[in-house]
Amino acid sequence: MKKKTLRILPLGGLGEVGRNMMVYEYNDSYMIVDTGLMFPENDMLGVDYIIPDFEYLKSRADKIKGIVITHGHEDHIGAVHHLLKEIQAPIYATPLTRGLLEVKLARRGGIKDADLRTVQAGETVHIGPFQVEFFHVAHSIPDAVGLGIQTPAGLVVHTGDFKFDQTPVDNWPTDVAKLGEFSQRGVMALLSDSTNAVDSGWTPSERVVDQAFEKVFNDAEGRIIVASFASLISRMQQVANAAQAHGRKMAFFGTSMVDNAKMAQELGYLNIPDDVLVNSDEALKLPDNEVVLMCTGSQGEPRSIMGRLAMGTNRRFDIKPKDTVVLSSQAIPGNEEAVYRTINKLFKRGANVIYEGLAPVHVSGHPAQEELKLLLNLVRPKYFIPIHGEIRHLRQHAKLAAQVGVPTENIAVIENGQIMEFENGEMQFAERIPISYVFVDGSGVGDVGPEVMHEREDLAQDGVLAVHLVLNKYSQRLIAPPAVISRGFILDSEVGEMLEEVVILVSQAMDEKPANIHRAVIKTVRTYLYGKTRRSPHILVTTSEI
Amino acid sequence: MKKKTLRILPLGGLGEVGRNMMVYEYNDSYMIVDTGLMFPENDMLGVDYIIPDFEYLKSRADKIKGIVITHGHEDHIGAVHHLLKEIQAPIYATPLTRGLLEVKLARRGGIKDADLRTVQAGETVHIGPFQVEFFHVAHSIPDAVGLGIQTPAGLVVHTGDFKFDQTPVDNWPTDVAKLGEFSQRGVMALLSDSTNAVDSGWTPSERVVDQAFEKVFNDAEGRIIVASFASLISRMQQVANAAQAHGRKMAFFGTSMVDNAKMAQELGYLNIPDDVLVNSDEALKLPDNEVVLMCTGSQGEPRSIMGRLAMGTNRRFDIKPKDTVVLSSQAIPGNEEAVYRTINKLFKRGANVIYEGLAPVHVSGHPAQEELKLLLNLVRPKYFIPIHGEIRHLRQHAKLAAQVGVPTENIAVIENGQIMEFENGEMQFAERIPISYVFVDGSGVGDVGPEVMHEREDLAQDGVLAVHLVLNKYSQRLIAPPAVISRGFILDSEVGEMLEEVVILVSQAMDEKPANIHRAVIKTVRTYLYGKTRRSPHILVTTSEI
Repeated sequence: MKKKTLRILPLGGLGEVGRNMMVYEYNDSYMIVDTGLMFPENDMLGVDYIIPDFEYLKSRADKIKGIVITHGHEDHIGAVHHLLKEIQAPIYATPLTRGLLEVKLARRGGIKDADLRTVQAGETVHIGPFQVEFFHVAHSIPDAVGLGIQTPAGLVVHTGDFKFDQTPVDNWPTDVAKLGEFSQRGVMALLSDSTNAVDSGWTPSERVVDQAFEKVFNDAEGRIIVASFASLISRMQQVANAAQAHGRKMAFFGTSMVDNAKMAQELGYLNIPDDVLVNSDEALKLPDNEVVLMCTGSQGEPRSIMGRLAMGTNRRFDIKPKDTVVLSSQAIPGNEEAVYRTINKLFKRGANVIYEGLAPVHVSGHPAQEELKLLLNLVRPKYFIPIHGEIRHLRQHAKLAAQVGVPTENIAVIENGQIMEFENGEMQFAERIPISYVFVDGSGVGDVGPEVMHEREDLAQDGVLAVHLVLNKYSQRLIAPPAVISRGFILDSEVGEMLEEVVILVSQAMDEKPANIHRAVIKTVRTYLYGKTRRSPHILVTTSEI
Repeated sequence: MKKKTLRILPLGGLGEVGRNMMVYEYNDSYMIVDTGLMFPENDMLGVDYIIPDFEYLKSRADKIKGIVITHGHEDHIGAVHHLLKEIQAPIYATPLTRGLLEVKLARRGGIKDADLRTVQAGETVHIGPFQVEFFHVAHSIPDAVGLGIQTPAGLVVHTGDFKFDQTPVDNWPTDVAKLGEFSQRGVMALLSDSTNAVDSGWTPSERVVDQAFEKVFNDAEGRIIVASFASLISRMQQVANAAQAHGRKMAFFGTSMVDNAKMAQELGYLNIPDDVLVNSDEALKLPDNEVVLMCTGSQGEPRSIMGRLAMGTNRRFDIKPKDTVVLSSQAIPGNEEAVYRTINKLFKRGANVIYEGLAPVHVSGHPAQEELKLLLNLVRPKYFIPIHGEIRHLRQHAKLAAQVGVPTENIAVIENGQIMEFENGEMQFAERIPISYVFVDGSGVGDVGPEVMHEREDLAQDGVLAVHLVLNKYSQRLIAPPAVISRGFILDSEVGEMLEEVVILVSQAMDEKPANIHRAVIKTVRTYLYGKTRRSPHILVTTSEI
């Protein structure tokens, strides 16, 4: 006989930022919440992005009853098209989130196989044994939801990303009353957003951005160019409102931003009057002080419009003096240097650059410490699992929970792969399954791993030197001088003499008929180059036998 | 007849953070202020550090009358041993700065040739035509100075790094009275620290760190391990004071920290009672709650003690549960990710980690906006040149100067290499000399440049694939199958089949007797691999002719 056991398995978002994914399991039925991607860290060389590890799900594909998406940010929807290659299940999302997912799937492939189902905040959906109550949350994207997941084993509240913004741009604050209702009913476990758990106080309302833009629009003499994330629909609305108030026209640049804005307009999440919105061609013909351009590239991505403007390689227009550039976003952790480099380059090109730190042109979409404590006091869960964040965020969130009275033994700071079980109203640690980083690089998924990263790191450190030997197939003696070439090692002007010396030393080493040719050549070359330069390029040896 | 012309040439620290170096020139006599290094940015692959470009100075070596060092931080002294290979001149520094320089030169070589001269804050030194008045400034290292540089062309105030800390750890605040005296005399130009020009308000006093440590020492149940910079002498004192107050012994770990502490103790800049300071062996034998260890590695450097503790590869001791780890420093810009990764690993190993953001265990050593404005109002310079910072800092500092009444036409936001001339009390832009990044990599100085960086970046992106061809020297036809090898491209398990295909395709391409063999092979391989993987590894082609 089956027990009433609920199992919660995090496949992403715990101990890291991004690629959020949680699996709920009850009586061999599964439900997935979010399937996001993560941006590579600085030492994940050449990787485009990282997705969750679907290995555990592959053998259970037919038991997955549904996929719920809490909101339309990349770290929650970015790996859905990869997941759809492995499993087929209905996807539940609110209208805007569905719209963003459709735009993405249309570009990535997979739109025709996707079974997308629209849910409104406030609705309840039955997904296998899970009764899922969608409740609205304020976040830095409209139409975000949290979930009340009622199971025979108990009620779980899963916040998704949220903040307690009392004056959000769309005037739709987090559904506090619904949280209160869950609380009345009795919440077995709360899973809550830890991203800002290290930040004290209360995250400011999105409204403060309006005031910052008001000043920008008042002060700007020439064009205003605003960069932000393509999914930050509420920011588009704020810029549009400022443009309208100051008699400027507005245009979007960049495919993803144009597509998202169009979709959001159609669905009614973005309201820009026809006499404000112009297309990019018209915008570039208007007088400088009558236009605001909104584009992608707030992270300084080299191929984005803002990245190209900073480099002076944008095709359709350039930065000019008196331009005011606003980077209306926060640097993604690890990305600060790229963002500041972009800012410095824009300054050099003559723009006045406004960015977070100089003015509140961006606020976080995640709850700070006082909000997290309020949520805990409101929901009064028996058990608490901090989600979304690095270990340092999860630990700090756990401390906050202890401060408001959750018994420490009822708080589980866990990492991806650690399954938690709930039975008879008691939480316990179940098995931990192995989870790896799945790197996406070009068209390959999972075909680069730690060893390839390590090789790339090694190549990046001191470059590479390749030695080729043509050998007599019987005597294993050289029948031509070794061919040598290097890249990324040292300036061409310096390398010539060293390569000549390598040819001589390798020939001498071969004269001694080494037992292991590869090892002997590598040792000879490495010793010489290190002595000469204190560097160790990666040495590749190949042979041909004739 | 020579005019009374003063020329100021920045060779570092303008438009970048680090490698501070300024050259003052009057009537063909030169004086250098500071000669620091800069840490590489994330895309400067394999580079150890970057030093100023000495090219301009080499041909003027015999006219350099002296080198003045403002304080003992790496970004002000770190390239002195490289400079001493090019020029010989007396080096003027305060006792602690001299001590730190001696420790460094002793390790790097160059100590025996260095003509070091001790100067006390308050003293005036004649260096060629420059009358240099050293005045004390508070900074995150003791014994720092700013300079009043009196020349026949006028008086220049050069702050070095400073803050207006009213309660510094050594009770020696910035010499405001001296600044007032300069002001009375009339200051032609002010060069002032822009590092924190984007930060509003007033930088907190070093004293706030005492309160944070008080809480750490009260709460800690086991060992306390404090990581900081090896040159942060005042922090050593603060930790020692807390150790004494809480009945703990203290020990230093890491060569540079041990050496610096010893020297600072000898010179009287660090006062740790004999019954508090123990050596590292003794410290490791003491009960956990009776000891505090202080070590390097606050930036998460992999080879530092804290880096090894996080990885679990430290030789002499490991992190254990109940350890409290304090990272008493700020992440160097661009280094945030490495620092946070270290923090997460330390948490995983069971330590409680306290870092900036959680508690004020570090404060900046640079002045914030209100301090910068105070300095400008105090010194009342005719001309103003913001120094030390990226363009965004310099621009913001310029705005602050304009706010307090410096005419905008009297403010020069310049970059390295831009010479400013002062003649008859008037500032003007003189020529701009070319300045490059001089990369230090292993034992090589300046033998890697942008093209080598670019090659390394390319190698890091998708790895490398080497193809070798053995050709008949007359027919240029293949006389053996092409030899192919790859690294950092794709997992070994996936690559085999692709390399076999490359051999076939290259052989076919060679059958067509291409006019340019290298180009034909690269094109064939690149097209195949990109089609197969959407990646473009760096392709190396070598040939042997027989």
